[in-house]
Amino acid sequence: MTIKAYIFDAYGTLFDVHSVMEELETLFPEKGEAISQTWRRKQVEYFFLRQVMGRYKPFDQVTKDSLLYAVNESGQSADESRLEHMLESYRQLKHYDEVEDVLKELQGKELIVFSNGSENMLHPLMTFSGLESLFTSTISADEIKQYKPSPAAYAYALEKAGVKREEVLFMSSNGWDISGAKSFGFHTAWINRNNLPTEELQLEPDAVYEDLRGILQW
Amino acid sequence: MTIKAYIFDAYGTLFDVHSVMEELETLFPEKGEAISQTWRRKQVEYFFLRQVMGRYKPFDQVTKDSLLYAVNESGQSADESRLEHMLESYRQLKHYDEVEDVLKELQGKELIVFSNGSENMLHPLMTFSGLESLFTSTISADEIKQYKPSPAAYAYALEKAGVKREEVLFMSSNGWDISGAKSFGFHTAWINRNNLPTEELQLEPDAVYEDLRGILQW
Repeated sequence: MTIKAYIFDAYGTLFDVHSVMEELETLFPEKGEAISQTWRRKQVEYFFLRQVMGRYKPFDQVTKDSLLYAVNESGQSADESRLEHMLESYRQLKHYDEVEDVLKELQGKELIVFSNGSENMLHPLMTFSGLESLFTSTISADEIKQYKPSPAAYAYALEKAGVKREEVLFMSSNGWDISGAKSFGFHTAWINRNNLPTEELQLEPDAVYEDLRGILQW
Repeated sequence: MTIKAYIFDAYGTLFDVHSVMEELETLFPEKGEAISQTWRRKQVEYFFLRQVMGRYKPFDQVTKDSLLYAVNESGQSADESRLEHMLESYRQLKHYDEVEDVLKELQGKELIVFSNGSENMLHPLMTFSGLESLFTSTISADEIKQYKPSPAAYAYALEKAGVKREEVLFMSSNGWDISGAKSFGFHTAWINRNNLPTEELQLEPDAVYEDLRGILQW
């Protein structure tokens, strides 16, 4: 088996979505962690719901909506300026420690980012992080308005990559994303950063690593 | 506006999915609450994921899979007999206190249960609870293998109800279910039993009540 394209999820996989926690804590004292956790949980739930209901809205809107829900749930109040401030912070998430080294080791191969993030969120993030030049290309599910884990989203990434389905190694820290990619027919490496159980969906990942260094075995 | 059919969600709306917590606590000491919460969260997530991925499995399978995940996450081990024991308990969930009185007040109207539950889970539950005779009919999303909140699921329930879309009042305690029903075009009453914020999906419910007694106003 030859892997011709390495496709990486962005949020949670390359970037730590909870690196905004301190910023949240400043704006919403003593609620930073709770808001950060609910924000991410609802953001992902809203991807799923909008996909199932057939009511696509882009990532920046969903990310703002889910933050508003999280702030409301915490008992705080969210004015427009604080929501916008946090969306701006979401364009400056920290990447995980090992990411840069792993990408440097893989130079010369086709390295692709494929994310639910819309261009107006993902592009600033890739630029700010300094990772952009280490990738061959960045693909957004927003280009076809179909969120992962729908088969249509992975099919689009595959078409853009221009390789065969079985020549893809797909990396994500999100169990639902790995399940979707495996269901579609990619080889999958689950970056299980939080030491969670495997999803019980009869779609086991081909490999499980605690961080991205594991993929250097491929 | 005349409401000609009252359509009720089952799990969480008529029945308390956390009424198995004591039973879980007996089988998995000190982990009952954590398992119960994760069980429900993953069960709903698996509905969404299977719907998005186009990999339908019936409710009993999804309910067993999500329980297994929850037990694994808690650090306990789940053998087949304990999983089956808990699935059996799920056929004997308690209904909420006010349900019977409200249904008795509404007798003479078309009262329908519409659930993601498969017949082999939902029928025993309806029988055991003694609520079955208070409803006109029970509809399962399993009959078309499309989970709520997909439009296809609500369309099927509407067809079975034999009324017009705008003649339906749909009740659920699940925010995602209310969003899906509203998106489809039903009147919706969100039974907000846990005092949660409204979902930020631009699909506000027509009414919000803390329990089912509120619907007697319609």
